[in-house]
Amino acid sequence: MMKANFHSNLDNEFGALTAFWSPRVVAVANGQHVKVAKVKGEFVWHAHAAEDEFFLVRRGTLTIRYRDRPDVVLTEGDFHVVPKGVEHMPVAADECWVVLVEPAAPTHTGETVSAMTRTIEQQTVNLR
Amino acid sequence: MMKANFHSNLDNEFGALTAFWSPRVVAVANGQHVKVAKVKGEFVWHAHAAEDEFFLVRRGTLTIRYRDRPDVVLTEGDFHVVPKGVEHMPVAADECWVVLVEPAAPTHTGETVSAMTRTIEQQTVNLR
Repeated sequence: MMKANFHSNLDNEFGALTAFWSPRVVAVANGQHVKVAKVKGEFVWHAHAAEDEFFLVRRGTLTIRYRDRPDVVLTEGDFHVVPKGVEHMPVAADECWVVLVEPAAPTHTGETVSAMTRTIEQQTVNLR
Repeated sequence: MMKANFHSNLDNEFGALTAFWSPRVVAVANGQHVKVAKVKGEFVWHAHAAEDEFFLVRRGTLTIRYRDRPDVVLTEGDFHVVPKGVEHMPVAADECWVVLVEPAAPTHTGETVSAMTRTIEQQTVNLR
């Protein structure tokens, strides 16, 4: 799927994003997708039954809201793993740039399908 | 292995590193390790038979030398995946800070055991 010797720059990949909450897959390794996403506002409450989700903030501030534990607030350079099966909602008051690592399979809204759901096909347009 | 709600900052994790070529596991998700490493000089030629290796440069310049394809030069914010089974040698003329994502299993020198090899136990001291 990726060309041999492919390499790129995170900020260039963020620059190619034109919509919020619309992740872009930028690398594939060991069945995992590395993605970039620009986010702003509230996402949807959701959980990934079988997948952990790694978040790294590149710019701005991201809050991960939880129903059963304290919220986690992440600023530039901060990272956090949302464990599989745990309901959460990402929120950013202002525009925030996030790097994600998660298995290639799931939609980014887990079992929840909403108007904000983007399929893997939509997230990997740049790789084809 | 990670505490619930654990979150941290990349640069703080780099700050905890006191040796070159001695990766530190900072997060675990989906059987993958997210690691930070400070590198300088030449590593060893090696390959990971079954594992891809994702590299993201946080600071400095890293060159991935290959035997069978052009070298890849990565500066701050650049990322690249070394495919499984492909022999490579990371090199940095000056100190370089690298974020790695790879399966939890392997040593960082693949099938090659050298004086520079650090076991997973040595790489995860901070998590216990």
